[in-house]
Amino acid sequence: MRILGIDPGTATVGYGLIDEKDGQLAVVAYGAISTKPKDGDTARRLQIVYEGLNDLIATFKPDVAAVEELFFGRNTTTAIKVGQARGVILLALANAGIAVAEYSPPKIKESVSGYGNASKQQVQFMVQSILDLEEVPKPDDAADGLAVALTHYQYYRHELLYE
Amino acid sequence: MRILGIDPGTATVGYGLIDEKDGQLAVVAYGAISTKPKDGDTARRLQIVYEGLNDLIATFKPDVAAVEELFFGRNTTTAIKVGQARGVILLALANAGIAVAEYSPPKIKESVSGYGNASKQQVQFMVQSILDLEEVPKPDDAADGLAVALTHYQYYRHELLYE
Repeated sequence: MRILGIDPGTATVGYGLIDEKDGQLAVVAYGAISTKPKDGDTARRLQIVYEGLNDLIATFKPDVAAVEELFFGRNTTTAIKVGQARGVILLALANAGIAVAEYSPPKIKESVSGYGNASKQQVQFMVQSILDLEEVPKPDDAADGLAVALTHYQYYRHELLYE
Repeated sequence: MRILGIDPGTATVGYGLIDEKDGQLAVVAYGAISTKPKDGDTARRLQIVYEGLNDLIATFKPDVAAVEELFFGRNTTTAIKVGQARGVILLALANAGIAVAEYSPPKIKESVSGYGNASKQQVQFMVQSILDLEEVPKPDDAADGLAVALTHYQYYRHELLYE
Protein backbone atom coordinates (compact mmCIF):
# COMPACT_ATOMS: atom_id res chain seq x y z
CA MET A 1 0.00 0.00 0.00
CA ARG A 2 1.31 3.43 -0.96
CA ILE A 3 0.24 6.28 1.33
CA LEU A 4 0.39 9.97 0.42
CA GLY A 5 0.49 12.24 3.47
CA ILE A 6 -0.27 15.93 3.01
CA ASP A 7 0.26 18.95 5.24
CA PRO A 8 -1.72 21.79 3.63
CA GLY A 9 -0.55 25.35 4.25
CA THR A 10 -1.27 28.77 2.83
CA ALA A 11 1.91 29.08 0.74
CA THR A 12 3.51 25.65 1.11
CA VAL A 13 1.93 22.21 0.89
CA GLY A 14 4.18 19.52 2.33
CA TYR A 15 3.91 15.90 1.20
CA GLY A 16 5.40 12.53 1.99
CA LEU A 17 4.90 9.18 0.29
CA ILE A 18 5.56 5.88 2.02
CA ASP A 19 5.17 2.29 0.91
CA GLU A 20 4.07 -0.43 3.27
CA LYS A 21 4.64 -4.07 2.34
CA ASP A 22 4.34 -6.95 4.81
CA GLY A 23 4.72 -4.53 7.70
CA GLN A 24 7.91 -3.00 6.26
CA LEU A 25 7.97 0.76 5.58
CA ALA A 26 9.91 2.54 2.87
CA VAL A 27 10.02 6.21 1.94
CA VAL A 28 9.16 6.81 -1.70
CA ALA A 29 9.42 10.60 -1.90
CA TYR A 30 8.87 13.75 0.09
CA GLY A 31 8.93 17.45 -0.59
CA ALA A 32 6.79 20.55 -0.82
CA ILE A 33 4.72 22.41 -3.40
CA SER A 34 5.46 26.08 -2.77
CA THR A 35 3.96 29.24 -4.18
CA LYS A 36 5.10 32.83 -3.70
CA PRO A 37 3.21 36.11 -3.98
CA LYS A 38 5.08 36.85 -7.24
CA ASP A 39 3.49 33.73 -8.80
CA GLY A 40 0.21 35.61 -9.08
CA ASP A 41 -3.06 36.13 -7.28
CA THR A 42 -4.74 33.65 -4.96
CA ALA A 43 -6.55 31.86 -7.80
CA ARG A 44 -3.31 31.38 -9.75
CA ARG A 45 -1.48 30.10 -6.67
CA LEU A 46 -4.28 27.61 -5.98
CA GLN A 47 -3.92 26.48 -9.57
CA ILE A 48 -0.20 25.81 -9.01
CA VAL A 49 -1.01 23.72 -5.91
CA TYR A 50 -3.68 21.80 -7.82
CA GLU A 51 -1.41 21.10 -10.78
CA GLY A 52 1.47 20.14 -8.49
CA LEU A 53 -0.72 17.64 -6.69
CA ASN A 54 -2.06 16.25 -9.97
CA ASP A 55 1.55 15.71 -11.08
CA LEU A 56 2.40 13.96 -7.80
CA ILE A 57 -0.62 11.66 -8.13
CA ALA A 58 0.20 10.83 -11.76
CA THR A 59 3.86 10.12 -10.94
CA PHE A 60 3.51 8.13 -7.73
CA LYS A 61 -0.02 6.67 -7.98
CA PRO A 62 -0.80 6.53 -4.24
CA ASP A 63 -3.46 4.04 -3.09
CA VAL A 64 -4.73 6.24 -0.31
CA ALA A 65 -4.17 9.77 1.00
CA ALA A 66 -4.16 11.33 4.46
CA VAL A 67 -4.52 15.06 5.04
CA GLU A 68 -3.84 17.05 8.19
CA GLU A 69 -6.89 18.76 9.67
CA LEU A 70 -6.66 22.43 10.50
CA PHE A 71 -5.46 23.37 13.93
CA PHE A 72 -8.58 24.85 15.56
CA GLY A 73 -6.87 27.66 17.45
CA ARG A 74 -5.88 29.61 14.36
CA ASN A 75 -7.68 32.78 13.32
CA THR A 76 -10.37 32.83 10.63
CA THR A 77 -8.18 34.62 8.06
CA THR A 78 -5.59 31.84 8.26
CA ALA A 79 -8.34 29.23 8.37
CA ILE A 80 -9.92 30.40 5.12
CA LYS A 81 -6.54 30.49 3.34
CA VAL A 82 -5.60 27.00 4.49
CA GLY A 83 -9.17 25.94 3.65
CA GLN A 84 -8.74 27.16 0.06
CA ALA A 85 -5.58 25.08 -0.35
CA ARG A 86 -7.28 22.07 1.26
CA GLY A 87 -10.19 22.50 -1.16
CA VAL A 88 -8.08 22.08 -4.29
CA ILE A 89 -6.10 19.23 -2.66
CA LEU A 90 -9.27 17.30 -1.81
CA LEU A 91 -10.57 17.99 -5.32
CA ALA A 92 -7.41 16.59 -6.98
CA LEU A 93 -7.68 13.45 -4.80
CA ALA A 94 -11.42 13.03 -5.55
CA ASN A 95 -10.77 13.44 -9.28
CA ALA A 96 -8.20 10.64 -9.08
CA GLY A 97 -10.60 8.42 -7.10
CA ILE A 98 -8.25 8.29 -4.09
CA ALA A 99 -9.86 7.87 -0.66
CA VAL A 100 -8.88 10.51 1.89
CA ALA A 101 -8.43 10.14 5.63
CA GLU A 102 -8.07 13.18 7.90
CA TYR A 103 -6.12 13.46 11.15
CA SER A 104 -5.88 16.32 13.63
CA PRO A 105 -2.44 17.67 14.64
CA PRO A 106 -2.67 16.16 18.16
CA LYS A 107 -3.56 12.76 16.66
CA ILE A 108 -0.56 12.95 14.35
CA LYS A 109 1.78 13.91 17.20
CA GLU A 110 0.37 11.18 19.43
CA SER A 111 0.60 8.60 16.67
CA VAL A 112 4.17 9.39 15.60
CA SER A 113 5.78 10.33 18.90
CA GLY A 114 3.41 8.78 21.47
CA TYR A 115 2.70 12.21 22.88
CA GLY A 116 -0.10 14.56 21.70
CA ASN A 117 1.75 17.68 22.81
CA ALA A 118 5.07 16.74 21.22
CA SER A 119 7.16 19.57 19.76
CA LYS A 120 7.76 19.91 16.02
CA GLN A 121 11.36 18.77 16.61
CA GLN A 122 10.29 15.66 18.50
CA VAL A 123 7.90 14.68 15.72
CA GLN A 124 10.59 15.26 13.08
CA PHE A 125 13.09 13.20 15.05
CA MET A 126 10.59 10.32 15.29
CA VAL A 127 9.78 10.54 11.56
CA GLN A 128 13.51 10.30 10.81
CA SER A 129 13.94 7.42 13.25
CA ILE A 130 10.88 5.34 12.23
CA LEU A 131 11.66 5.71 8.53
CA ASP A 132 15.39 5.17 9.06
CA LEU A 133 16.41 8.34 7.23
CA GLU A 134 19.94 9.72 7.32
CA GLU A 135 18.73 13.19 8.19
CA VAL A 136 15.59 15.07 9.17
CA PRO A 137 13.49 15.61 6.00
CA LYS A 138 13.49 19.21 4.82
CA PRO A 139 11.57 21.47 4.49
CA ASP A 140 9.58 21.10 7.71
CA ASP A 141 6.39 20.76 5.67
CA ALA A 142 7.79 17.64 3.99
CA ALA A 143 8.55 16.09 7.39
CA ASP A 144 4.97 16.93 8.39
CA GLY A 145 3.68 15.26 5.22
CA LEU A 146 5.58 12.08 6.12
CA ALA A 147 4.21 12.29 9.69
CA VAL A 148 0.65 12.37 8.30
CA ALA A 149 1.37 9.35 6.09
CA LEU A 150 2.87 7.48 9.08
CA THR A 151 -0.21 8.31 11.14
CA HIS A 152 -2.43 6.78 8.52
CA TYR A 153 -0.25 3.68 8.47
CA GLN A 154 -0.55 3.34 12.27
CA TYR A 155 -4.36 3.64 12.17
CA TYR A 156 -4.58 1.29 9.22
CA ARG A 157 -2.37 -1.32 10.90
CA HIS A 158 -4.40 -0.98 14.10
CA GLU A 159 -7.57 -1.67 12.15
CA LEU A 160 -6.04 -4.75 10.54
CA LEU A 161 -4.87 -6.10 13.90
CA TYR A 162 -8.23 -5.67 15.62
CA GLU A 163 -10.68 -6.43 12.83
CA MET B 1 -19.64 42.84 -20.09
CA ARG B 2 -20.99 39.71 -18.40
CA ILE B 3 -20.37 39.48 -14.65
CA LEU B 4 -20.59 36.29 -12.61
CA GLY B 5 -21.19 36.97 -8.90
CA ILE B 6 -20.58 34.15 -6.43
CA ASP B 7 -21.56 33.68 -2.79
CA PRO B 8 -19.55 30.66 -1.56
CA GLY B 9 -20.99 28.63 1.30
CA THR B 10 -20.29 25.29 2.92
CA ALA B 11 -23.19 23.38 1.32
CA THR B 12 -24.64 25.91 -1.11
CA VAL B 13 -22.85 28.19 -3.56
CA GLY B 14 -25.10 30.97 -4.84
CA TYR B 15 -24.51 32.63 -8.20
CA GLY B 16 -25.90 35.41 -10.30
CA LEU B 17 -25.00 36.50 -13.84
CA ILE B 18 -25.70 39.98 -15.15
CA ASP B 19 -24.99 41.65 -18.46
CA GLU B 20 -24.05 45.30 -18.71
CA LYS B 21 -24.30 47.07 -22.04
CA ASP B 22 -24.15 50.86 -22.43
CA GLY B 23 -25.04 51.29 -18.76
CA GLN B 24 -28.08 49.00 -19.01
CA LEU B 25 -28.25 45.95 -16.77
CA ALA B 26 -29.92 42.64 -17.54
CA VAL B 27 -30.13 39.44 -15.49
CA VAL B 28 -28.85 36.44 -17.42
CA ALA B 29 -29.29 33.68 -14.83
CA TYR B 30 -29.18 33.00 -11.12
CA GLY B 31 -29.34 29.98 -8.90
CA ALA B 32 -27.35 27.81 -6.54
CA ILE B 33 -25.09 24.79 -6.66
CA SER B 34 -26.10 22.69 -3.66
CA THR B 35 -24.62 19.58 -2.12
CA LYS B 36 -26.00 17.43 0.67
CA PRO B 37 -24.29 15.06 3.12
CA LYS B 38 -25.76 12.10 1.22
CA ASP B 39 -23.84 13.19 -1.91
CA GLY B 40 -20.67 11.86 -0.33
CA ASP B 41 -17.65 12.98 1.69
CA THR B 42 -16.14 16.45 1.65
CA ALA B 43 -13.91 15.71 -1.33
CA ARG B 44 -16.84 14.44 -3.41
CA ARG B 45 -18.96 17.46 -2.48
CA LEU B 46 -16.14 19.82 -3.48
CA GLN B 47 -15.97 17.97 -6.78
CA ILE B 48 -19.70 18.63 -7.34
CA VAL B 49 -19.18 22.36 -6.68
CA TYR B 50 -16.17 22.43 -9.02
CA GLU B 51 -18.02 20.63 -11.83
CA GLY B 52 -21.10 22.81 -11.34
CA LEU B 53 -19.01 25.94 -11.67
CA ASN B 54 -17.21 24.57 -14.73
CA ASP B 55 -20.63 23.94 -16.33
CA LEU B 56 -21.78 27.49 -15.49
CA ILE B 57 -18.62 28.97 -17.02
CA ALA B 58 -18.95 26.84 -20.16
CA THR B 59 -22.63 27.73 -20.58
CA PHE B 60 -22.58 31.45 -19.83
CA LYS B 61 -18.97 32.46 -20.61
CA PRO B 62 -18.65 35.32 -18.11
CA ASP B 63 -16.02 38.01 -18.79
CA VAL B 64 -15.22 38.57 -15.15
CA ALA B 65 -16.14 37.10 -11.78
CA ALA B 66 -16.65 38.56 -8.32
CA VAL B 67 -16.58 36.45 -5.16
CA GLU B 68 -17.77 37.35 -1.67
CA GLU B 69 -15.03 37.43 0.95
CA LEU B 70 -15.59 35.51 4.15
CA PHE B 71 -17.25 37.30 7.01
CA PHE B 72 -14.44 37.65 9.57
CA GLY B 73 -16.51 37.00 12.67
CA ARG B 74 -17.23 33.36 11.89
CA ASN B 75 -15.51 30.54 13.71
CA THR B 76 -12.51 28.69 12.28
CA THR B 77 -14.44 25.48 11.57
CA THR B 78 -16.87 27.38 9.35
CA ALA B 79 -13.99 29.39 7.88
CA ILE B 80 -12.10 26.31 6.73
CA LYS B 81 -15.22 24.78 5.18
CA VAL B 82 -16.11 27.94 3.29
CA GLY B 83 -12.41 28.24 2.41
CA GLN B 84 -12.46 24.79 0.82
CA ALA B 85 -15.42 25.72 -1.37
CA ARG B 86 -13.77 29.04 -2.25
CA GLY B 87 -10.61 27.15 -3.21
CA VAL B 88 -12.27 25.03 -5.88
CA ILE B 89 -14.29 28.05 -7.11
CA LEU B 90 -11.15 30.18 -7.55
CA LEU B 91 -9.46 27.22 -9.25
CA ALA B 92 -12.30 26.81 -11.78
CA LEU B 93 -12.14 30.55 -12.57
CA ALA B 94 -8.32 30.49 -12.91
CA ASN B 95 -8.51 27.46 -15.21
CA ALA B 96 -10.95 29.38 -17.43
CA GLY B 97 -8.70 32.47 -17.42
CA ILE B 98 -11.39 34.62 -15.77
CA ALA B 99 -10.19 37.50 -13.56
CA VAL B 100 -11.62 37.49 -10.04
CA ALA B 101 -12.52 40.47 -7.84
CA GLU B 102 -13.32 40.02 -4.15
CA TYR B 103 -15.69 42.09 -2.01
CA SER B 104 -16.41 41.92 1.72
CA PRO B 105 -20.02 41.55 2.94
CA PRO B 106 -20.17 45.19 4.25
CA LYS B 107 -18.89 46.45 0.86
CA ILE B 108 -21.59 44.46 -0.93
CA LYS B 109 -24.32 45.77 1.40
CA GLU B 110 -23.04 49.33 1.07
CA SER B 111 -22.79 49.09 -2.69
CA VAL B 112 -26.22 47.54 -3.29
CA SER B 113 -28.30 49.24 -0.58
CA GLY B 114 -26.23 52.31 0.33
CA TYR B 115 -25.86 51.03 3.87
CA GLY B 116 -23.06 48.71 5.14
CA ASN B 117 -25.22 47.29 7.93
CA ALA B 118 -28.25 46.59 5.75
CA SER B 119 -30.29 43.47 6.57
CA LYS B 120 -30.43 40.47 4.22
CA GLN B 121 -34.01 41.48 3.34
CA GLN B 122 -33.01 45.06 2.47
CA VAL B 123 -30.23 43.81 0.18
CA GLN B 124 -32.60 41.35 -1.51
CA PHE B 125 -35.20 44.07 -2.02
CA MET B 126 -32.60 46.34 -3.64
CA VAL B 127 -31.34 43.51 -5.87
CA GLN B 128 -34.93 42.94 -7.03
CA SER B 129 -35.48 46.67 -7.54
CA ILE B 130 -32.22 47.50 -9.36
CA LEU B 131 -32.56 44.50 -11.66
CA ASP B 132 -36.30 45.07 -12.16
CA LEU B 133 -37.25 41.51 -11.22
CA GLU B 134 -40.84 40.45 -10.60
CA GLU B 135 -39.93 38.76 -7.34
CA VAL B 136 -37.05 38.36 -4.91
CA PRO B 137 -34.61 35.82 -6.40
CA LYS B 138 -34.65 32.48 -4.57
CA PRO B 139 -32.82 30.80 -2.90
CA ASP B 140 -31.24 33.51 -0.74
CA ASP B 141 -27.80 32.42 -1.96
CA ALA B 142 -28.80 33.25 -5.55
CA ALA B 143 -29.89 36.75 -4.48
CA ASP B 144 -26.51 37.09 -2.74
CA GLY B 145 -24.75 36.00 -5.93
CA LEU B 146 -26.59 38.72 -7.88
CA ALA B 147 -25.67 41.26 -5.15
CA VAL B 148 -21.98 40.37 -5.58
CA ALA B 149 -22.26 40.79 -9.36
CA LEU B 150 -24.00 44.16 -8.89
CA THR B 151 -21.27 45.28 -6.51
CA HIS B 152 -18.65 44.53 -9.11
CA TYR B 153 -20.63 46.51 -11.67
CA GLN B 154 -20.80 49.52 -9.32
CA TYR B 155 -17.04 49.43 -8.70
CA TYR B 156 -16.31 48.93 -12.36
CA ARG B 157 -18.58 51.82 -13.39
CA HIS B 158 -17.00 54.03 -10.74
CA GLU B 159 -13.58 53.26 -12.16
CA LEU B 160 -14.74 54.13 -15.68
CA LEU B 161 -16.26 57.44 -14.50
CA TYR B 162 -13.19 58.61 -12.60
CA GLU B 163 -10.38 57.25 -14.72
